[in-house]
Amino acid sequence: MTATLAPTRIEHDLIGDRAVPAQAYWGVHTLRAVENFPITGQTVACAPDLINALAAIKWAAAEANRDLGLLDPARAEAIIAACREIREGTLHDQFVVDLIQGGAGTSTNMNANEVIANRALEILGHARGDYRHLHPNEHVNMGQSTNDVYPTALKLAAWTGLHRLAAAMAVLRGAFAEKAAEFADVLKMGRTQLQDAVPMTLGQEFGTYAVMLSEDEARLTEAAALICEINLGATAIGTGITAHPLYAAKVREALSRITGIPLITAPDLIEATQDCGAFVQLSGVLKRIAVKLSKTCNDLRLLSSGPRAGFNEINLPAMQAGSSIMPGKVNPVIPEVVNQVAYEVIGNDVTITMAAEAGQLQLNAFEPVIFYSLYRSVAHLTAACLTLEKNCIRGITANRDRLRDMVEQSIGLVTALNPYIGYQNATAVAQEALRSGRGVVEIVLERGLMARDQLEAVMRPEILARPHERLGMEPQA
Amino acid sequence: MTATLAPTRIEHDLIGDRAVPAQAYWGVHTLRAVENFPITGQTVACAPDLINALAAIKWAAAEANRDLGLLDPARAEAIIAACREIREGTLHDQFVVDLIQGGAGTSTNMNANEVIANRALEILGHARGDYRHLHPNEHVNMGQSTNDVYPTALKLAAWTGLHRLAAAMAVLRGAFAEKAAEFADVLKMGRTQLQDAVPMTLGQEFGTYAVMLSEDEARLTEAAALICEINLGATAIGTGITAHPLYAAKVREALSRITGIPLITAPDLIEATQDCGAFVQLSGVLKRIAVKLSKTCNDLRLLSSGPRAGFNEINLPAMQAGSSIMPGKVNPVIPEVVNQVAYEVIGNDVTITMAAEAGQLQLNAFEPVIFYSLYRSVAHLTAACLTLEKNCIRGITANRDRLRDMVEQSIGLVTALNPYIGYQNATAVAQEALRSGRGVVEIVLERGLMARDQLEAVMRPEILARPHERLGMEPQA
Amino acid sequence: MTATLAPTRIEHDLIGDRAVPAQAYWGVHTLRAVENFPITGQTVACAPDLINALAAIKWAAAEANRDLGLLDPARAEAIIAACREIREGTLHDQFVVDLIQGGAGTSTNMNANEVIANRALEILGHARGDYRHLHPNEHVNMGQSTNDVYPTALKLAAWTGLHRLAAAMAVLRGAFAEKAAEFADVLKMGRTQLQDAVPMTLGQEFGTYAVMLSEDEARLTEAAALICEINLGATAIGTGITAHPLYAAKVREALSRITGIPLITAPDLIEATQDCGAFVQLSGVLKRIAVKLSKTCNDLRLLSSGPRAGFNEINLPAMQAGSSIMPGKVNPVIPEVVNQVAYEVIGNDVTITMAAEAGQLQLNAFEPVIFYSLYRSVAHLTAACLTLEKNCIRGITANRDRLRDMVEQSIGLVTALNPYIGYQNATAVAQEALRSGRGVVEIVLERGLMARDQLEAVMRPEILARPHERLGMEPQA
Amino acid sequence: MTATLAPTRIEHDLIGDRAVPAQAYWGVHTLRAVENFPITGQTVACAPDLINALAAIKWAAAEANRDLGLLDPARAEAIIAACREIREGTLHDQFVVDLIQGGAGTSTNMNANEVIANRALEILGHARGDYRHLHPNEHVNMGQSTNDVYPTALKLAAWTGLHRLAAAMAVLRGAFAEKAAEFADVLKMGRTQLQDAVPMTLGQEFGTYAVMLSEDEARLTEAAALICEINLGATAIGTGITAHPLYAAKVREALSRITGIPLITAPDLIEATQDCGAFVQLSGVLKRIAVKLSKTCNDLRLLSSGPRAGFNEINLPAMQAGSSIMPGKVNPVIPEVVNQVAYEVIGNDVTITMAAEAGQLQLNAFEPVIFYSLYRSVAHLTAACLTLEKNCIRGITANRDRLRDMVEQSIGLVTALNPYIGYQNATAVAQEALRSGRGVVEIVLERGLMARDQLEAVMRPEILARPHERLGMEPQA
Repeated sequence: MTATLAPTRIEHDLIGDRAVPAQAYWGVHTLRAVENFPITGQTVACAPDLINALAAIKWAAAEANRDLGLLDPARAEAIIAACREIREGTLHDQFVVDLIQGGAGTSTNMNANEVIANRALEILGHARGDYRHLHPNEHVNMGQSTNDVYPTALKLAAWTGLHRLAAAMAVLRGAFAEKAAEFADVLKMGRTQLQDAVPMTLGQEFGTYAVMLSEDEARLTEAAALICEINLGATAIGTGITAHPLYAAKVREALSRITGIPLITAPDLIEATQDCGAFVQLSGVLKRIAVKLSKTCNDLRLLSSGPRAGFNEINLPAMQAGSSIMPGKVNPVIPEVVNQVAYEVIGNDVTITMAAEAGQLQLNAFEPVIFYSLYRSVAHLTAACLTLEKNCIRGITANRDRLRDMVEQSIGLVTALNPYIGYQNATAVAQEALRSGRGVVEIVLERGLMARDQLEAVMRPEILARPHERLGMEPQA
Repeated sequence: MTATLAPTRIEHDLIGDRAVPAQAYWGVHTLRAVENFPITGQTVACAPDLINALAAIKWAAAEANRDLGLLDPARAEAIIAACREIREGTLHDQFVVDLIQGGAGTSTNMNANEVIANRALEILGHARGDYRHLHPNEHVNMGQSTNDVYPTALKLAAWTGLHRLAAAMAVLRGAFAEKAAEFADVLKMGRTQLQDAVPMTLGQEFGTYAVMLSEDEARLTEAAALICEINLGATAIGTGITAHPLYAAKVREALSRITGIPLITAPDLIEATQDCGAFVQLSGVLKRIAVKLSKTCNDLRLLSSGPRAGFNEINLPAMQAGSSIMPGKVNPVIPEVVNQVAYEVIGNDVTITMAAEAGQLQLNAFEPVIFYSLYRSVAHLTAACLTLEKNCIRGITANRDRLRDMVEQSIGLVTALNPYIGYQNATAVAQEALRSGRGVVEIVLERGLMARDQLEAVMRPEILARPHERLGMEPQA
Repeated sequence: MTATLAPTRIEHDLIGDRAVPAQAYWGVHTLRAVENFPITGQTVACAPDLINALAAIKWAAAEANRDLGLLDPARAEAIIAACREIREGTLHDQFVVDLIQGGAGTSTNMNANEVIANRALEILGHARGDYRHLHPNEHVNMGQSTNDVYPTALKLAAWTGLHRLAAAMAVLRGAFAEKAAEFADVLKMGRTQLQDAVPMTLGQEFGTYAVMLSEDEARLTEAAALICEINLGATAIGTGITAHPLYAAKVREALSRITGIPLITAPDLIEATQDCGAFVQLSGVLKRIAVKLSKTCNDLRLLSSGPRAGFNEINLPAMQAGSSIMPGKVNPVIPEVVNQVAYEVIGNDVTITMAAEAGQLQLNAFEPVIFYSLYRSVAHLTAACLTLEKNCIRGITANRDRLRDMVEQSIGLVTALNPYIGYQNATAVAQEALRSGRGVVEIVLERGLMARDQLEAVMRPEILARPHERLGMEPQA
Repeated sequence: MTATLAPTRIEHDLIGDRAVPAQAYWGVHTLRAVENFPITGQTVACAPDLINALAAIKWAAAEANRDLGLLDPARAEAIIAACREIREGTLHDQFVVDLIQGGAGTSTNMNANEVIANRALEILGHARGDYRHLHPNEHVNMGQSTNDVYPTALKLAAWTGLHRLAAAMAVLRGAFAEKAAEFADVLKMGRTQLQDAVPMTLGQEFGTYAVMLSEDEARLTEAAALICEINLGATAIGTGITAHPLYAAKVREALSRITGIPLITAPDLIEATQDCGAFVQLSGVLKRIAVKLSKTCNDLRLLSSGPRAGFNEINLPAMQAGSSIMPGKVNPVIPEVVNQVAYEVIGNDVTITMAAEAGQLQLNAFEPVIFYSLYRSVAHLTAACLTLEKNCIRGITANRDRLRDMVEQSIGLVTALNPYIGYQNATAVAQEALRSGRGVVEIVLERGLMARDQLEAVMRPEILARPHERLGMEPQA
């Protein structure tokens, strides 16, 4: 509005001249992108991992080009210094392009090129915008294309996020494992299809959640390994046009060193430049994690239903008043928020799938929305695991008496008698128990199907929950 | 293999000559399509509604072309006679092309053209394949293109299927409404977030399922109306090339008469020929129905959980032995199968969405998979509603005593006291009830928060379930 | 960290005491929610429509309760004054709860109750937190439950967003319609399945995009009407417990007046409280819009492909340099960003579907993620329409000569001869044209299939694109 | 209808007596299931891999129980003989239960138990239905539960299907690799975002499709390995109730031998019994394959667009007449059908995801729809690969002259000059070329930016497509 008063500098691109705020580190390419993509309001600055990844790549490229004799040391050092500052957390507010953008990430790459160039110009003692001394495209972007820089940056950023997620999952798994130990001797009825089945322990039940997580962690590790394969050196379409033949190897080496990530260069750079398979695979694994977490939270909400008209097997810690109208009501708010994150991750997977499928010929232009969705999935899953661990699992208690009562009243105990009285007799006993409300043991004895001492030996719930651990009962064969 | 012995006739197309079984009504175009698309094994013959729709269109086109003086009466009558036979159920086994096919439905249209031409040739006293007398393209397909015939046929077939679905939903709704009436006086605890909330009746609960269905039926009717808009007369891309100017109106009139469906011709035929919006909308409504049915079945499974370690509020009829190992176990198998149909419908919606989005320029080539998915969704939802009504809802019984007990033990009753003792006092009462296991009434009296007679008047569960129907309590203001 | 120095006040809830920043308008319920749900970082403040909707509801409730004699006028006026201020844009920064939250929206509702109560306390001359004078639950939330307030607020907020979307769609439609008029006489080849088909005009092509949008606008209007049905007065589960019998009607009347939205109260409040069907329906329509927009943008990218090795039929305006490496390259960045929004909307629909399906018994606890997804879909689609109109469609130009050349070289012209020389002859002509590279007219004449003057009359491209508008050619019959 | 005349036998279950056709091998449990689940019409008989898997499991169980002394050798041998016959292809028509069924697969397991029992009874010289001699539950199902048998059978069946898919993918990959070799010297323009980019070869382009497939094959192999982990021995909920302690190891050993699949027993049988993660993972990989295949087919359709108003770079073999109205039109019908299969697979993944998420507590009751969807995805992808290879890729030819012309006219060549004249000069040249229609070389020379001989050396398209292979140009540094 009153931009006439704010100091500006003039920058030029393919389309013409534009005034840029004098104090901005970004330039004309960024300006146009901001105007073109006013979509989500969430800018690249909302994804600091991505900014750090871009800075690492530009740093590594400057090193490689310098070592190949293509970039003079002074400019290289200025670029590197600017990148180092950014990786230390400065200038993040200069990454003002919307995360969802057209142009296959060109605007994000140019935003980085411009910010780095202008900071490097300052370091070299020049004015911002005086690109004769150091140019965003010719020097910062040397030997590069958005088409190799951007997907590589996405992978580095995803890698960082994935490691936070894996750590959060491990924390959550630990909480489940502790509860599994704590509840190791708490007998309860197992249920299939929501119908009473046969006995187990609450420890076994919580143990499954720990096992599920450990399997998911293994899958996550596998998927993370796939994104260590980068296409830097591919430039525009994978043929490496404008890049020095030794550039790909050198830049990969520098980038691995700077980031600490064991990167490899894709064997076929043309394929790697158009392929979003690794993101699809990764999102599929995140979906799998979401599915399991959601199932787990469904179980927790079910087991804690009540307190008087529900299962009431366990108590989740009260984290907040549950209702603005129903006094004293406490709700399973933490599992509920985890469920919702899971639904979001599953929806994001569809977005990513469609974006990946829509790639055409030598490039996928829709990587921005792939990253936007993937990064949110990773971040929200991480947050969900942590709040679930801290605000829910750690505080769970068991209603031991009620759990044991349910086992003792159950009809499912009769299953244990199959090997002794047969499925048909057992069915008849179960039906009478259900009809009459009486206990299974009583009916079996009444019908003379088993002797009392044998029956009692077989029907001890402790044994039923772990039939293969019965003392003194040697397996034969 | 031994085709040398089977009698054949030679047919010719763009690509060359091929031997076709002499007794086949289909011809060379169909033969090539069968070879090209060995995908699902489910042929057009699996969708009799589609065959009937195609026959109706060819019949209507023959009438229109005859009346416009473009098709001689003898050929027209033969075509119409063949179509009438097909609509009576004959020759369906001649529709041998896979439902999922490339070519935007051309193979289905040509399969119809060939079968009708050959049957018409027979009627006229000629040999099958002797297309000099009556040609699949020139006569049966006169004034038509796959691009108007096929989507119109899909809409007619969908319409028929939708009416079966609407009828099934009405039957199911009736069953819920009957149960709502039967359980009108059965008090129970309402639940929010699986936690005990406030009282209601089981009749109210079943009533919601009836209401949900009636709303979905309204949405279905709206969506069905959208598919009455057809593009017949558009021919290849909507410009109507090769069709007589009066053809579109005439064929629509004839087709409405033959099928009894109130068809209208799309105002912009070019748009209508490329647009799959009506299918997307329809699939969205089917998804909505699936969501509600699935939620309802989730509830039924929850309410019938137990029998001893669950909610045990209602009993679903026992339809089969529930377990190959646990004697006497009865599972909610009917709701479970409905859930699965719902998941399938929701997945189909994604398929349809992607196929619709992938249409390019003047045509959507992916209508075959749209129909394949939509038709399955409609058919499976219809079957799901019917088995749910017949094999589950009709036989549901309520455990009235248990339901009332849960109300009387509940803490949620205290909500009713908010207007009398305030949210904060009520919260304190609820907390003590929960901690001590005592009843709410007892604690309120002990604390002197209300007089006994006032308390009893307010706390009568019958009133709590229908607070606005309380006798003698006149609303003021 | 240094909270010991910041002034605080102590608040109390079901769980115990907590220190709240003295200057905060929010209270202990909000504090706990902030700690429990550190998920997305996007708070309720990111959805001003939702804040305004909550303020309108609290305002309407205060009026209704005052008029029913349940709330004294002084407190009512203070609440109303606070709500009016909020609707004018103040205090939005006090809505600090994450949009994705457990608890079915209770935290959002309590955040509103607390902010309004504390601002009203100030207005009344009391200190923040001194709830003895005016209580968040007892006065601001009087006669309400999260379970009716929250979904009603979501619907009001969605309504507002939808009207912005509809306006943006109308603007975009206008741009397409203008281009349709501008290109009304530009001949081009129509294409089906990416293969050359028959002639049309570029104006017809752009006209279809306008028609598609107008149909989508109609569907959006229908879906928006469904969300005018609210459940205010339902309180906890729809039975209206704690609300005055006349409250529902009064609050609806006040709310309609305050918001200007023609609200109706759901006929069955129990059903309405648990049902998310209207959101699923609405999301389905947003998905439909996304599908069409995406298809349209796919077309635009295809038609402008090139400039030398593509279709090159139209030119999109150059909005930014297309490449950091390829000089002079201009990419279709605006359509690309619209595609990505579409993929996001389609993914959001899956999220919404799953959340809706997961509702249990008397409430859907997952409405927060439904709103989070729906609101983003609406906002991003609105932004996408506006940037597409302004930064793309308005500036499109046509390559008229190239378009006409393609028509004149095309083989598809032969389709127009079907009525004159038959499908079989026409096929032979087409095959020879394709094989030899010669023109269709030449071959038809050479084979003596038609006379030159007849042929020229039939083959005029202007006629082919609008066959039913040919001058002097009266339809017969 | 006339069942009164058909001979029947009476069978009995938990619910009561039912007449079963005397000649049927299935029994009362199957009968009830057929009546309860009339959903898709696609029975277990449509999935022969599943029948063979069930027979293998029952065979292995009989061996294990016999060796453990729990099942007498005569019955064991009869069961094994029946299973062997089934695996040889007999009695498949007796598997009459719908693939989508409630009951977590119990009906499929009981269908198998009944068919095997009745065939074994025959072998032993008894009448069908005379279960006193050999009982479906007590003998055929000994030591088993649906809850371990059914998921194990699904995994065996999926394994078999996956190997067919992998073989088909390898065949398709081979075809792409051959084309890559055939087109190794065919120069063409690479494209990003549908805009002309820089040169490459058609061989490189086809090579990427082969590389993509090989990566997908690797992912498929990994996912297939996960489904070798089975839960046989878990019985009802994973505690192994009713099974002999040594049973799990013995039955796994036998089953590996019978099927030739390297099975392992899950380390935590309780977790394994409720976990559908391996299916979700597998479906995610199938989705990835679908995404890539669909992208590839999109490319093929684009590259073959035309013949005169499109890219026209390659020719797909003509497989059928493309249009019922447009003579001579040939459409990319094979890629189109592959696209549709891909959309179906992606939709199926959503179905599988939802079904997996919906599992509760100790079992996922929705495995039937998981298998139904997964099996279709595998089968249809297999068919799609095979028809794509045979009916499309093998016959593709290149329009070499046209491809080279496009390279020579292209502006993208200027990219190669960046290292020599700089990005800014190169941009100016590109802009003038675009505006004037002139060639890049001409303009560069006119502006004196490079000497002709240097320019010609750099701009040789052969070098541009493989810049790092230029003769005599030694990489430095």
